[in-house]
Amino acid sequence: MNPEFLPASGASRTVPIGDVVTEAGVTILDAELRLFAFYNSPQGDADYAEFSAGPEPGLSPEERPVVLIEHALTGDGNAADWWADMVGPNKPIDTTRYLVLCANVLGGCQGSTGPSSPHPDGKAWGSRFPGLSIRDMVTAERQLLERVGVTKIHALIGASMGGARVLEWTLMYPEMISAALPIAVSARASAWQIGLQSSQIRFIEADPAWHGGDYYDKGEVPSHGLGQARRIAHLTYRGELEVDERFGVDPQRGENPYGAYRDPQQRFAVESYLDRQAEKLVARFDAGSYVVLTDALNRHDVGRGRGGMNAALGSCQVPTMVVGVDTDILYPLHQQEHLSRNLGDFIGMSKITSPTGHDGFLIESRQMGQVLVKFLAKAEIIAEGEEQ
Amino acid sequence: MNPEFLPASGASRTVPIGDVVTEAGVTILDAELRLFAFYNSPQGDADYAEFSAGPEPGLSPEERPVVLIEHALTGDGNAADWWADMVGPNKPIDTTRYLVLCANVLGGCQGSTGPSSPHPDGKAWGSRFPGLSIRDMVTAERQLLERVGVTKIHALIGASMGGARVLEWTLMYPEMISAALPIAVSARASAWQIGLQSSQIRFIEADPAWHGGDYYDKGEVPSHGLGQARRIAHLTYRGELEVDERFGVDPQRGENPYGAYRDPQQRFAVESYLDRQAEKLVARFDAGSYVVLTDALNRHDVGRGRGGMNAALGSCQVPTMVVGVDTDILYPLHQQEHLSRNLGDFIGMSKITSPTGHDGFLIESRQMGQVLVKFLAKAEIIAEGEEQ
Repeated sequence: MNPEFLPASGASRTVPIGDVVTEAGVTILDAELRLFAFYNSPQGDADYAEFSAGPEPGLSPEERPVVLIEHALTGDGNAADWWADMVGPNKPIDTTRYLVLCANVLGGCQGSTGPSSPHPDGKAWGSRFPGLSIRDMVTAERQLLERVGVTKIHALIGASMGGARVLEWTLMYPEMISAALPIAVSARASAWQIGLQSSQIRFIEADPAWHGGDYYDKGEVPSHGLGQARRIAHLTYRGELEVDERFGVDPQRGENPYGAYRDPQQRFAVESYLDRQAEKLVARFDAGSYVVLTDALNRHDVGRGRGGMNAALGSCQVPTMVVGVDTDILYPLHQQEHLSRNLGDFIGMSKITSPTGHDGFLIESRQMGQVLVKFLAKAEIIAEGEEQ
Repeated sequence: MNPEFLPASGASRTVPIGDVVTEAGVTILDAELRLFAFYNSPQGDADYAEFSAGPEPGLSPEERPVVLIEHALTGDGNAADWWADMVGPNKPIDTTRYLVLCANVLGGCQGSTGPSSPHPDGKAWGSRFPGLSIRDMVTAERQLLERVGVTKIHALIGASMGGARVLEWTLMYPEMISAALPIAVSARASAWQIGLQSSQIRFIEADPAWHGGDYYDKGEVPSHGLGQARRIAHLTYRGELEVDERFGVDPQRGENPYGAYRDPQQRFAVESYLDRQAEKLVARFDAGSYVVLTDALNRHDVGRGRGGMNAALGSCQVPTMVVGVDTDILYPLHQQEHLSRNLGDFIGMSKITSPTGHDGFLIESRQMGQVLVKFLAKAEIIAEGEEQ
């Protein structure tokens, strides 16, 4: 391992990974990925940078098995934040035992190279940023791990777009991975997903502030289009049972959507909720990244160039466990069941039962934690077998 | 019956129904509804206007039991067109036996008074058209039947927004209805539906061509916003299994969505399909009507002012059969199961099994036909019991 690039625990650093050549043949010059690392002493000390704290220092981060977490579409490398119940000392992904890594995705906007990043010429990449596939993201992450000096991934875990990267990792670099856990994902985009996702992209592209993707020096951002996209996306992340339990037909407090004339200011509670979701995303996320990453989800297909989807899955040599959420409408459970029937080295399937839909992997901490503990126990056995 | 207002079979006429006062207190002056009627001689002769053709003329249209069909959001009164396998001579809704009526809904744009219709002052209603509830639509239809002289509905049938009107009919004018069949609908809007539907409304309202709803004399229409709404709506009408079977990850012929740069001209097949759906709706439907009718769906709640949803359903005195589609994500089957548990005079539930989702009631003709035949047989028994 190259300690120069390993961030302090809970912190991040930007790692130069060299040029990335996309599947479609474009070179992203001098790419960088922002990497977070999480590791605590066996006593749970947060500051483990000295590699030697405590009476029983245990394994240093460099000696520890690596757990690589892949984040979802608008997530980021700070997995201990967005997956706080899963990642930490004595939590299911136990940072007193593992070196946990999570990098912001290529094409993103949280410190990794994406459309909003400066091109070597100093101006934003904007429309010059190429179309990405899920494979291109994995290519970049492979270059990142090489730079950091990680040669073996003990456990590879990701949900949604993170799950798509997990699947591609197992097909592109199987020799590096002991065990994999794709969650709430499918072997390829479904046409329904592409329909919804391409519509979201069009909402952004139709915003006059989009400027063909080159809005970064225009003094305005396509916040309206991004907000439109988020409203729809959010309703595919949440189960209708959960949304209905929370809001039903309630008016937003102080407003009356049953008035004599339709009035956009008189909202149902769920409208106000979606307004907030849209505003929050607009405040924290770049529309250009949203388009690139959503387009990559459309391009997701493990079968492309590999003799078809099931042939590709069948060729998978990494022991892989699969997780789905029973009420997920974006990645319905039958897609994970399809994986379970076709993966070459399938080691089990778990179902999260929840009214929350796709986001169940974020919300149902108890169930998700149980699955992670079970998976990591299997990964230990597999890794021991590899060493013998 | 007042033959003056009964259209020739297969034809329509515009019937003045007087002023309609909405639930929220606005008066729609001099409203009209466009009414279609379907009735054939026992031999199936299409021209039955003489009421006496053929060797066995059977019952005249005026003497026949009335089947009232309620159309869905963007449907119209021509039920023999959009439900061609269901409505006609010797079809499940047999026009040699029944007088079949179907009226374009209040607020619509196919001949009934709506935002695009001329206000008594000669200009379009536009933003002066009030917010409608499902109950307001039924109020108007009640006035229509009074004008036509129909006092008894032998069988009341409708799906989706039509099903919502069926439920309201049974609560507002139970004495007029022998039996009712709401299809693919719920007792009230769910928050998830309201979220999706209010988003669609906002897409239209955000179109600069909307002009606050008063675009009718502006020389442009909010076709972009209406198209955006339709893309999303259509994906809630169709099941993801069916959409995926048809399109998968196929590129549109001659296009390459996997290229080096994202290019809106290089589409997946499903994108092209949604483009067509959007274009077709824009060509045939008024955005103002779309907003009014979608807003009415948001307001749908049989429980409002009636002591709550289940109390209202429990008070229903009309024998009611319920139908759902197993893959419907817009009106999931559990909503029809809820109706089955709570309706005051529930006479059975049927499930259409189909990968097509909500639109299964339009697409799965064999199953839908079976259900209609079964329902109409029950309606005969019920009507005979009423006569005794």
